[in-house]
Amino acid sequence: MNDNIVNVAILGASGYTGAETIRLLLQSSKYHISAMTADSKAGLNIGEVFSHMRNYNLPSLIKADDINFDSIDAIISCMPHGKSQEIISSIPNNIKISDLSADFRFSNIDLYEKTYEVSHKAISLQKEVVYGLTELNRAEIKKCRIVSNPGCYPTSALIPLIPLVKNNMIEIENIIVDSKSGVSGAGRGLKESLLFAEVSEGFGAYALANHRHAPEINFHLSEYFESNVNVTFTPHLLPIKRGILSTIYFKIKDDYKFKDIKNCLSKTYKNEQFIDVNEDYIPSTHDVRGTNLCSIGLAYDKNTKNCIIVSVIDNLIKGASGQALQNLNLMFGNKESEGLINIPTFI
Amino acid sequence: MNDNIVNVAILGASGYTGAETIRLLLQSSKYHISAMTADSKAGLNIGEVFSHMRNYNLPSLIKADDINFDSIDAIISCMPHGKSQEIISSIPNNIKISDLSADFRFSNIDLYEKTYEVSHKAISLQKEVVYGLTELNRAEIKKCRIVSNPGCYPTSALIPLIPLVKNNMIEIENIIVDSKSGVSGAGRGLKESLLFAEVSEGFGAYALANHRHAPEINFHLSEYFESNVNVTFTPHLLPIKRGILSTIYFKIKDDYKFKDIKNCLSKTYKNEQFIDVNEDYIPSTHDVRGTNLCSIGLAYDKNTKNCIIVSVIDNLIKGASGQALQNLNLMFGNKESEGLINIPTFI
Amino acid sequence: MNDNIVNVAILGASGYTGAETIRLLLQSSKYHISAMTADSKAGLNIGEVFSHMRNYNLPSLIKADDINFDSIDAIISCMPHGKSQEIISSIPNNIKISDLSADFRFSNIDLYEKTYEVSHKAISLQKEVVYGLTELNRAEIKKCRIVSNPGCYPTSALIPLIPLVKNNMIEIENIIVDSKSGVSGAGRGLKESLLFAEVSEGFGAYALANHRHAPEINFHLSEYFESNVNVTFTPHLLPIKRGILSTIYFKIKDDYKFKDIKNCLSKTYKNEQFIDVNEDYIPSTHDVRGTNLCSIGLAYDKNTKNCIIVSVIDNLIKGASGQALQNLNLMFGNKESEGLINIPTFI
Amino acid sequence: MNDNIVNVAILGASGYTGAETIRLLLQSSKYHISAMTADSKAGLNIGEVFSHMRNYNLPSLIKADDINFDSIDAIISCMPHGKSQEIISSIPNNIKISDLSADFRFSNIDLYEKTYEVSHKAISLQKEVVYGLTELNRAEIKKCRIVSNPGCYPTSALIPLIPLVKNNMIEIENIIVDSKSGVSGAGRGLKESLLFAEVSEGFGAYALANHRHAPEINFHLSEYFESNVNVTFTPHLLPIKRGILSTIYFKIKDDYKFKDIKNCLSKTYKNEQFIDVNEDYIPSTHDVRGTNLCSIGLAYDKNTKNCIIVSVIDNLIKGASGQALQNLNLMFGNKESEGLINIPTFI
Repeated sequence: MNDNIVNVAILGASGYTGAETIRLLLQSSKYHISAMTADSKAGLNIGEVFSHMRNYNLPSLIKADDINFDSIDAIISCMPHGKSQEIISSIPNNIKISDLSADFRFSNIDLYEKTYEVSHKAISLQKEVVYGLTELNRAEIKKCRIVSNPGCYPTSALIPLIPLVKNNMIEIENIIVDSKSGVSGAGRGLKESLLFAEVSEGFGAYALANHRHAPEINFHLSEYFESNVNVTFTPHLLPIKRGILSTIYFKIKDDYKFKDIKNCLSKTYKNEQFIDVNEDYIPSTHDVRGTNLCSIGLAYDKNTKNCIIVSVIDNLIKGASGQALQNLNLMFGNKESEGLINIPTFI
Repeated sequence: MNDNIVNVAILGASGYTGAETIRLLLQSSKYHISAMTADSKAGLNIGEVFSHMRNYNLPSLIKADDINFDSIDAIISCMPHGKSQEIISSIPNNIKISDLSADFRFSNIDLYEKTYEVSHKAISLQKEVVYGLTELNRAEIKKCRIVSNPGCYPTSALIPLIPLVKNNMIEIENIIVDSKSGVSGAGRGLKESLLFAEVSEGFGAYALANHRHAPEINFHLSEYFESNVNVTFTPHLLPIKRGILSTIYFKIKDDYKFKDIKNCLSKTYKNEQFIDVNEDYIPSTHDVRGTNLCSIGLAYDKNTKNCIIVSVIDNLIKGASGQALQNLNLMFGNKESEGLINIPTFI
Repeated sequence: MNDNIVNVAILGASGYTGAETIRLLLQSSKYHISAMTADSKAGLNIGEVFSHMRNYNLPSLIKADDINFDSIDAIISCMPHGKSQEIISSIPNNIKISDLSADFRFSNIDLYEKTYEVSHKAISLQKEVVYGLTELNRAEIKKCRIVSNPGCYPTSALIPLIPLVKNNMIEIENIIVDSKSGVSGAGRGLKESLLFAEVSEGFGAYALANHRHAPEINFHLSEYFESNVNVTFTPHLLPIKRGILSTIYFKIKDDYKFKDIKNCLSKTYKNEQFIDVNEDYIPSTHDVRGTNLCSIGLAYDKNTKNCIIVSVIDNLIKGASGQALQNLNLMFGNKESEGLINIPTFI
Repeated sequence: MNDNIVNVAILGASGYTGAETIRLLLQSSKYHISAMTADSKAGLNIGEVFSHMRNYNLPSLIKADDINFDSIDAIISCMPHGKSQEIISSIPNNIKISDLSADFRFSNIDLYEKTYEVSHKAISLQKEVVYGLTELNRAEIKKCRIVSNPGCYPTSALIPLIPLVKNNMIEIENIIVDSKSGVSGAGRGLKESLLFAEVSEGFGAYALANHRHAPEINFHLSEYFESNVNVTFTPHLLPIKRGILSTIYFKIKDDYKFKDIKNCLSKTYKNEQFIDVNEDYIPSTHDVRGTNLCSIGLAYDKNTKNCIIVSVIDNLIKGASGQALQNLNLMFGNKESEGLINIPTFI
């Protein structure tokens, strides 16, 4: 029986996606956490870094360089871009990897380097990589060794947009993605702008026309279209811990009507346990909190002929650790929902 | 000296805009609160309705019908639409009125009736009314008897949009107003959806393509243009008490550049103490909390050629009680900033 | 296999403990939700009452009177006191009941009637009832038909206090329980004081020296002592959704030292998976959120010789639905942790 | 007229008490902010440190060493303990000082050094210092050069306790002060535990039996009593930005009754505009937000004979910058309320 258990090393376990990955894996009997790294906190027990994890039988934090890969079957990397590449390129190639960094999200190396302003350090690995938007790339993910998990904002935008772009149903010239994210999306870095006293009871936009998730959205939409797609993407910081809501605006092509848009999404995702297309309901972040769900609602403005899509995810789960695990489940032949929950907490 | 003090009656004092109006008036020595109404809570002391007001020398709540107008110089009406009209039409015409309801916001009676699904009960008064977007209608407000204060969302959208529409600088076909409001904007009505346990840590859109502030925005933009303007307006509910942020998207006309847009707004509002146009800063709701300010930032997306404006107000002040008082100040020849503050609280 | 599944009816499913009960039961394959009642919302789908539950295969809400008990094995009652008794007294006595109301918490009928100011309507059933503080009454709970689950505040106070009182280790004359609860503890009733705009960014005490959970704490402590125990109990309302923290103050008897207090609790609960006694750590509500845990920390003030205990629970789980399910698990011979989680969410 | 304006330098202007001090001074025409220091942020405009202050005509941040004291009449020091002493000891002695640090709060040097684990660097100045609990030391404050403003927690505890201790009305052996503070009280330092994602939706105690405000409370209570007073003090961190609520427990001496306690506080503070004693109301932090008020409520537990006092302040105002300004007002012969507001914001 033990043979079936996947031994996982979590790289970068001391941040929020690290904590969430630990939590999800602890909920499953199919995975065992064999190693956890956190370079700046190596030597500490996880309980010193996340007090709520102090009572589980977890390995101490070590430096990434000190992992013994002999007993490791899989890696979930929660490290920042740049660092993730370095370490992943040194990992024995019998180990499967689910990477949460941006390092392998662009098969176009130039675009990656331009967007992240670093040089790509593992170009040869890039060809092994599948972009981990699970529901759209399931077949390839099952067979691959390295999954590059999408960014949180792109996950919320691409799930509803790809089927519509792919089927050439919408005007691609003026797609607007107005996104709002909970604070955990910004990570655990120490910045004044993330302090409770500066976040609570406030709301703001940031990185207007300049966020790195815009090229990611554009690149992956363009994969499904004959020419480059460019969306306008505006992220905002919500005074909540977790949750992303993207409000997406576009015009429908003349050949189609609003109901065709609804049908397209409903049909595309009708068998998906983690995608929930609502024809008559606009979901809120409450509807997905604590789950691996992406929930979608649609509306149509007759006066302006704009179609409006609202897409919500839990940024730490479907937008990060959950999708990473969903993909790992596929890669190891586990049930796709292993360790994942789809009953929201709401309150 | 006493002769200069304006005796005010607050209609509908038991809601949030009522409380805010009381607070602002108490901070000024130019106004005296002579009467306060709240039909469902008539007979109570204000301290029984708002405990934080228990220690000020304020009149008890009475029914609107029981006001003695003899000693009243001015009315601030915080009543809901429909009710406000009824009472205002019965008020002696020597009394000046600053109305926060939607009842007089449309000089087009049909549009009002269609939008609010009630019949207009004070059509004859409508011609005395000035729409109270202070900075744009100052001269008329000074001379008028009845000011109809704009809705909170429209205030945030119209202040940046009117100068651009008026000067014919932007494409009016596809203006998108993605707005996010604090909960106080929904009032003090008892609804499950407004309970702390159902708002905190969540975020959602509502009334997609169907909110009553869309016709208000459209109507007042159209006043400055040769044809009807229709924006797409999507309101969202933020888990904060006060504050509105509107993210506004549009294309600039070919004859103009992004810097022209910035110049237009900077120039229009350069002498305004309550409007703050930032050419290189995107304001958040923190920047205006507790003040009568509207703060505006701008960005340009080169890839999509979209111009993005972020406009923030404190919905209870510039979006309601503050603008109502700003207008009353004009109507009574007081300093325009009397009782109003422009130093934000932030923390 | 189907024979092993327990068919549950949830009475009062439209409140927060109802929603939490549904959520926990959906996470288990050992239970099936066969009926759900909500008198004021009978006829609605649960998705109309809790949108996040709209996608699960759940029965519609019916009136309590309309339940067909033929196919029901167990009841979890989330109804308010008074109502719970009425319905429970009419239930066939082959059905096991886990009751979250206060109706059966006092074997002393007079005390119940005095505290809740209603007459007891099911006196004959009271003798079948076990007080559902699981870890202290496990043996009796396994054998009983009706469990009366403790109040949320009493759960947080009694778990640490009972072993100390029972072993006569502390001065019982001056025990102070200063408790702070998240808002969901107040239920889903529509009150101005529970609106987001009136809870967020604020904090207050209520029901000083007058809360109904004081008699409950006193009654059950006294069961373990030779004379009546009276604590001073002060509840406060926290601007959080879920979580209770009780700070408990008392003096240690001369025969004992602080380390004896720690030892007593550590030893009493050392094999308990849902009770976590920390000798060198003071837990916060984050450490138990989303779990059925009660986590306890201790400190000693040398200057004043006061012992201080901090006890935290998730009020909706260990303080309500979780403990109710933990008890039902015992009553049906399931694993005690069935449907319950002990990995906190934290973020 | 200009001669009457007090030129103030704010030391340590880049933290939260600094920001609040700026805000309060900007609201008054009696003060001019002539210099602002922030050693680590010297050279920046205040708008780069607090964006909401970018539009006021304020001096740039400089190092404390670079102040030109020639044109300065008064100092408000918001620096941390240790640093405050150093700088204050080098200031020309014609300048009046209102210090928010702990450096001068103990006339007992040994106690200071033991409590703060640093050596006192300005012992000779200590004798010029008055402890700035305004309402209790008003006469001395008016005449002094240096005011040491009380800590935030001590302010909330001492205002209700001193009159009772001084009049020997309560048992001093077992006074418990269970305090809860908003996050701004912890300052703007970068700590994971102060990040929004780790504060929101949680609540915890800290520094049990070990907080530096306990010796401060004890020392100043003891000044009014024949022997040393030792309270048990437990601080907790609330997920709110501003506000402190202290729940205080004690036994009344046999000679007195609960009504005597109420009378004592009511009488002591009956003419105080910033102290609000409520005989029949328990205030919450909402009742004082944004104000310089201390609001007090009382209850009596007949069963345990404990008296319970609830005391609330806005920690940034009455607990810090507001009280510092109140004292400065006295020192310069201004109206005591100059720049201070007593109308709470609530929403």
